[in-house]
Amino acid sequence: MILTINHGAVRELQLNRPPANALSPELIVALRQAVESAPQDGARALVLSGTAGRFSAGLDIPLLLTLDHPAIATLWREFYALLRALALSPVPIAAAIAGHATAGGTVLPIFCDCRVAARGDWKLGLNEVQVGLPLPPVIFTGLKRLVGAHQAERLAVGGLLISPDEAVRVGLVDEVVPLDHVVSRAIEWSRALLALPVDAMEATRRRARADLHELFGAPFDLELDHVSATWWSAEAQTTLRVLVDRLARKKA
Amino acid sequence: MILTINHGAVRELQLNRPPANALSPELIVALRQAVESAPQDGARALVLSGTAGRFSAGLDIPLLLTLDHPAIATLWREFYALLRALALSPVPIAAAIAGHATAGGTVLPIFCDCRVAARGDWKLGLNEVQVGLPLPPVIFTGLKRLVGAHQAERLAVGGLLISPDEAVRVGLVDEVVPLDHVVSRAIEWSRALLALPVDAMEATRRRARADLHELFGAPFDLELDHVSATWWSAEAQTTLRVLVDRLARKKA
Amino acid sequence: MILTINHGAVRELQLNRPPANALSPELIVALRQAVESAPQDGARALVLSGTAGRFSAGLDIPLLLTLDHPAIATLWREFYALLRALALSPVPIAAAIAGHATAGGTVLPIFCDCRVAARGDWKLGLNEVQVGLPLPPVIFTGLKRLVGAHQAERLAVGGLLISPDEAVRVGLVDEVVPLDHVVSRAIEWSRALLALPVDAMEATRRRARADLHELFGAPFDLELDHVSATWWSAEAQTTLRVLVDRLARKKA
Repeated sequence: MILTINHGAVRELQLNRPPANALSPELIVALRQAVESAPQDGARALVLSGTAGRFSAGLDIPLLLTLDHPAIATLWREFYALLRALALSPVPIAAAIAGHATAGGTVLPIFCDCRVAARGDWKLGLNEVQVGLPLPPVIFTGLKRLVGAHQAERLAVGGLLISPDEAVRVGLVDEVVPLDHVVSRAIEWSRALLALPVDAMEATRRRARADLHELFGAPFDLELDHVSATWWSAEAQTTLRVLVDRLARKKA
Repeated sequence: MILTINHGAVRELQLNRPPANALSPELIVALRQAVESAPQDGARALVLSGTAGRFSAGLDIPLLLTLDHPAIATLWREFYALLRALALSPVPIAAAIAGHATAGGTVLPIFCDCRVAARGDWKLGLNEVQVGLPLPPVIFTGLKRLVGAHQAERLAVGGLLISPDEAVRVGLVDEVVPLDHVVSRAIEWSRALLALPVDAMEATRRRARADLHELFGAPFDLELDHVSATWWSAEAQTTLRVLVDRLARKKA
Repeated sequence: MILTINHGAVRELQLNRPPANALSPELIVALRQAVESAPQDGARALVLSGTAGRFSAGLDIPLLLTLDHPAIATLWREFYALLRALALSPVPIAAAIAGHATAGGTVLPIFCDCRVAARGDWKLGLNEVQVGLPLPPVIFTGLKRLVGAHQAERLAVGGLLISPDEAVRVGLVDEVVPLDHVVSRAIEWSRALLALPVDAMEATRRRARADLHELFGAPFDLELDHVSATWWSAEAQTTLRVLVDRLARKKA
């Protein structure tokens, strides 16, 4: 589900779960472990990529709708643990967004160090509200950190999907480049950081990400209870099932 | 002074106090009551509009200069109550700014959910300092929330009036559209929100506006005393009277 | 080292330490004293300028490398005192950046009220990390105040030098004008502020800069100990000496 490609000291973790790199419980755990173990394996920076045209469609809703209460509670706990691993990674992480990145597919890059997106007709954004899920608080905070309070409100409440050009304009991504340059640009960005005096870069990075350390230093038990409960709300269940039925019919 | 126009579940509150939709004590109270009562009447979103070419000139300075100390104290208390009603409205509010919006005319939209402005040669901004009034703290905080600390300092200290194009660039408004599309676009924006799963939208909206709830949760007595006292300062009185004399001569 | 040029009530303090207006310990103290004494001499606003093509290259690294531990500790204490004097100045300060402004050369403008930069092929930015120095926390906070958390992280961690056009786009400077208009535009900006009702302008300015007052109200002893210690780290000393050798060879 994850291909590991080493480019010297930069390790690319490529999401590889066709057709849409949707995040299953197994992929979430595997990705967290891959992120956490990379520095011990000698990786000095990470690139998180998907497949051409598809970074990730976010949580695998059809699969998640088959899970019971304890499994959903575990899912959210593991998803938060993955966000924490990205946010607090001791090595920098560049997201290489070469295609669609919706819902959870945009959440992962928010907690990385840098986001390179492909120019073109791709959809990015946090459309959680559109599928019946309130945007979880920790994700809203991460979004606000990137784009400010005004755009965070606009994007999150409307559940907006936006173009890469708009994403770079509002600060949701850092750069937009041609599709087939996305991964190489993310590697180049990582190498530029690694070429810097390491102690100075790391100390400044810790300072710049101190707010993320504070955010993920707090306990999330209450928030996780709330997020899990929301999953089981009548509105969420109905909306998600309608969505899944539509997707199934579309495929058929 | 306020025309109420229902567009399905979206209620438009149109300021209608010629010639400039200046805010009189009566209009301020009436607008707050209209905002507060709308959800009880079944409105699920509000559009706050003015007349073509003029959203609002802000506080009615010539009228306010005829008021005594207790009336000015009441005026400011009521103005803050109006801002609170906009900021904490249980239903989303879009400001449809189809023309000039100066001083208080820009303050009201700051506390709405969305601001659609008309393209063209209109003036927007917080020119309070230009007329001798420091920008009240709660308004500065609202401005900073929209445009960030840097632009808030630049705009507020200089009392700058800016074009709609600059306003959208710095984040003071969300969108700029042709004059005769402003209201329809604000209605469309509102309807898009209302088409979303309601619990998810509302929970995310509460999260995004939690800072406004915190801001208006604090008591304002001291701040109101200070703002009222400033109104009676020699500088404010002199500047405001010169302004009013100039306006009167211009009219004559 | 500093030329004082009065333009009516606006006093220009022109850095004049060829060839690059690098900040020596003496210049740092002299600049702080010039900033602090200006209001007592009747200056109602300040313009901080450099020479055409060169605002400032920041700290004079070759000179600083000759200093011992107590002198370096004093240097940083005085540099922080200069930043404090700029940030808390009772009169507005416009930075007139008519050329390169690197490292400390960008730090000074960050704490001014307004930044006018020259259009053209000039380098601006906080390249501290590139020369082996972590960006000191108080400077990171000032940067974040101007450009937001996202751009502050990007610029500081990468030690990026950027063009004036990018600087205005991300909010690091306020305006870009032709080289020979930079000082006159900074004077014009200052005069516009001074033409405003003074009490209203000053009260709004205090509110807008309350975060800087809070920042510099805290004691910096621990942070200064840390910043000084970092100067003497193996990485910083090695990187700085390589840099200085390269500069010396380039000159020869």
